[in-house]
Amino acid sequence: MQDITDVAKRLVQHNKGKITEVYFVACGGSLVDMYVSDYFIRSESTTITSGWYTANEFVHATPKRLGKNSVVIACSHGGNTPETVEAARIAKAAGAQTVGLTYNDKADLLAVSDYSFLYEWGDETRVHNNPMAIMLELTVGMVNELEGYDHYNTFMEGMKLIDTIVASAEKQVEPRAKAFADAYKDEEMFYVMASGASYGHAYGFSICSLMEMQWLDATAVHTGEFFHGPLEITDENTPFILAMGLGRTRELDERVLKFLKRYAKKIEVVDAKELGLDMIDDSVSEYFNPVLFYSVLSKYRYALSKVHNHDLDVRRYMGKVEY
Amino acid sequence: MQDITDVAKRLVQHNKGKITEVYFVACGGSLVDMYVSDYFIRSESTTITSGWYTANEFVHATPKRLGKNSVVIACSHGGNTPETVEAARIAKAAGAQTVGLTYNDKADLLAVSDYSFLYEWGDETRVHNNPMAIMLELTVGMVNELEGYDHYNTFMEGMKLIDTIVASAEKQVEPRAKAFADAYKDEEMFYVMASGASYGHAYGFSICSLMEMQWLDATAVHTGEFFHGPLEITDENTPFILAMGLGRTRELDERVLKFLKRYAKKIEVVDAKELGLDMIDDSVSEYFNPVLFYSVLSKYRYALSKVHNHDLDVRRYMGKVEY
Repeated sequence: MQDITDVAKRLVQHNKGKITEVYFVACGGSLVDMYVSDYFIRSESTTITSGWYTANEFVHATPKRLGKNSVVIACSHGGNTPETVEAARIAKAAGAQTVGLTYNDKADLLAVSDYSFLYEWGDETRVHNNPMAIMLELTVGMVNELEGYDHYNTFMEGMKLIDTIVASAEKQVEPRAKAFADAYKDEEMFYVMASGASYGHAYGFSICSLMEMQWLDATAVHTGEFFHGPLEITDENTPFILAMGLGRTRELDERVLKFLKRYAKKIEVVDAKELGLDMIDDSVSEYFNPVLFYSVLSKYRYALSKVHNHDLDVRRYMGKVEY
Repeated sequence: MQDITDVAKRLVQHNKGKITEVYFVACGGSLVDMYVSDYFIRSESTTITSGWYTANEFVHATPKRLGKNSVVIACSHGGNTPETVEAARIAKAAGAQTVGLTYNDKADLLAVSDYSFLYEWGDETRVHNNPMAIMLELTVGMVNELEGYDHYNTFMEGMKLIDTIVASAEKQVEPRAKAFADAYKDEEMFYVMASGASYGHAYGFSICSLMEMQWLDATAVHTGEFFHGPLEITDENTPFILAMGLGRTRELDERVLKFLKRYAKKIEVVDAKELGLDMIDDSVSEYFNPVLFYSVLSKYRYALSKVHNHDLDVRRYMGKVEY
């Protein structure tokens, strides 16, 4: 795989540091993996902005800003998702620099990517090589090259620690995930909540793990939004999964937890702090929340698949019928 | 009420046209109303960017870019939502220009707003005076002032037509909304779908109309994302509400409809084209989709409230308990 820091430097140097925006373009689970990088730029950068697009919207309603000062990062696990490949093609034609991530070394996406990362898959304990972490490191690297990022070294220290933290958290959470699956095996609808950099994984657990892989109903609710509508569905029968992150928006998550403890009964808390993410410095830990949550929540979906006797890779439409 | 075009001009002139970004900051239904304005900037502007924030996230994880070149638009119906008022206060303290929208002329929000719009409420047929339309017109006006917007006059023509279109569409949809409510009165979970500028209202109908006002489960799915996860929950028993807009992303909605017609049975289509939005020119009609959908979907929620004998303003937590 290409050196991430090197690609970040080359992207910035290519047009003499004139990058004005980064677009993150993908579908479903790959789009979820980009959320934290988009969030990082929106939150930390003073020189560039960012857009997070489901690929077909980017293709049909291409932002007018797209051009030679844009970087477009496209990710597709199989590498042939038609709308993602088309989005990267449009980006390249508009003069943007393109970065493609895929697991497939024969992917169509590679043909329209100026830079590409063939990521590893399967060995879940090496999370620093998964597409989410690669994109995050690339994004942080670009921002650091462009304008300097005060916590860059601390962030890179975090990248060295994250594999160990995740491996330990996965072990820690396994019995709890099993207990959760046993207790919640007959539930058909889940509210999945998070905030900040983690919100993408509330969405991802909802659409991928629950809807796609278990054919269960679900919805993602931002903990900041909960009190402005969704709270009214709270009762003792509604199941909530709350991914409590470290960092600046943790207070939002805590407020929801306090409310749920009073008015709900079915509450599953996945707490980054309890799971050891606080080994990473406070100044950057929030950007690692989603890396941890993805792996830990994968234990939950696996446990659900076992009690449901519904394998995670069973589909009734995807890859089975035309649409 | 202040003249919208005039405020747009003054915002731009204030710092000599150096606006770099607009932040839209609110909670729940007010945040929903901002989605189209954020979408407009992200899609059409080449000089400024945009951010769409639930207020408490903006307060806790304030973007570093926030400063004297930012415009922050904050909206709160009652005008005292603490996190929205705090967000506007933070924005003002950072040197940003602030615009507040509220229905309440004694609102705390007014004290931290450089410009304010006291909007009307109740007369649903004058939609061009609702907060969504005010913010959209202000946003389009700012972009036009800053860099010129090719379709500005066409857009303003649309603003003159929208009240008539909405009033006619509301009548047209009323019997259908009643039939929908009768047919779906026992359903407890809805999938609400849209794309482009309309996606905000898929989210809004889900969190406000269904969760908050009817205590029903719901989820918003972008039609571009549907095929990358959510489609797997499709069956003959799952109810779908599809808001099909006019404009560039209509093709995404049509693709979902085609799929649903084949594999689902409970499908309610709200089609902007059929409801007369095509009276507005193609070049700008997509930005009016959400204005139409808000009013039309309000007929649906009203019809649901009648068959459920559950008034739209009944709450069990909001305004009832501390949290």
